[in-house]
Amino acid sequence: MELAEKEAILGMRRKHGGPFGAVIVRKGKVIAKAHNEVIKRNDPTAHAEITAIRKASKKLKKFYLSDCEIYTTCEPCPMCLCAIKWARIKRIFYGCSKDDARKIGFDDKKFYDSMRHRQKNMKSIDREHCLIPFEIWQDIKKKTRY
Amino acid sequence: MELAEKEAILGMRRKHGGPFGAVIVRKGKVIAKAHNEVIKRNDPTAHAEITAIRKASKKLKKFYLSDCEIYTTCEPCPMCLCAIKWARIKRIFYGCSKDDARKIGFDDKKFYDSMRHRQKNMKSIDREHCLIPFEIWQDIKKKTRY
Repeated sequence: MELAEKEAILGMRRKHGGPFGAVIVRKGKVIAKAHNEVIKRNDPTAHAEITAIRKASKKLKKFYLSDCEIYTTCEPCPMCLCAIKWARIKRIFYGCSKDDARKIGFDDKKFYDSMRHRQKNMKSIDREHCLIPFEIWQDIKKKTRY
Repeated sequence: MELAEKEAILGMRRKHGGPFGAVIVRKGKVIAKAHNEVIKRNDPTAHAEITAIRKASKKLKKFYLSDCEIYTTCEPCPMCLCAIKWARIKRIFYGCSKDDARKIGFDDKKFYDSMRHRQKNMKSIDREHCLIPFEIWQDIKKKTRY
């Protein structure tokens, strides 16, 4: 966690993004260190956790990190929490809470809420057409599942 | 949506990932097209929507895409839904439903559930240390907020 904290400070000082850092560890060895790079990369998805996952999966050449754990300086937002789940990371250690983050202007409460309720700005269109790729996928015999 | 469907088929045929495509449009103009690249990039976060957001924000050189809308062949998973929210995209058009996706082996129900309940594999440690970057952030007078 000390390394994650260092990343958070480093990223902030370099004006890469908000005060967040994350480290991915596998069998006691650090695989990836990252900090928030939303501003540097002009990428709203470049949170510390997602950036760490991208680095780790690239390094290990696999998209499942089920033998890894993640240390993040703050409780993950729903995007990162779900990314951690897609990456099959089994254990999450975090420092500050989402309430601590809210106090300094990073409020993801509305994001958590949005997972619970149907969104008004979402509309289904062209479902029949979009089912075509699904049908093709079903017909492929040899495929990598994830 | 036709373009998003083409992307989904293209990505699947090239074995880049699952049968999903997304397109970001701004004032009637296509800004970014993407398909799922989880397998190609060994990146569990490389869903079509996230890849499209990355491309669009890179192209427009801004991390807020509030004047854009997204067309995605399938109802976004919680990770992508939250990424769309972080990107401030206001309108979401989707084709297939998450139930359609579940039927072909892409089940994100457990991810939605995980947003509702406290996770057993999450533990807070070293909060006091992790508050330090937050305090430094608070003290910075000139900073880009997001």
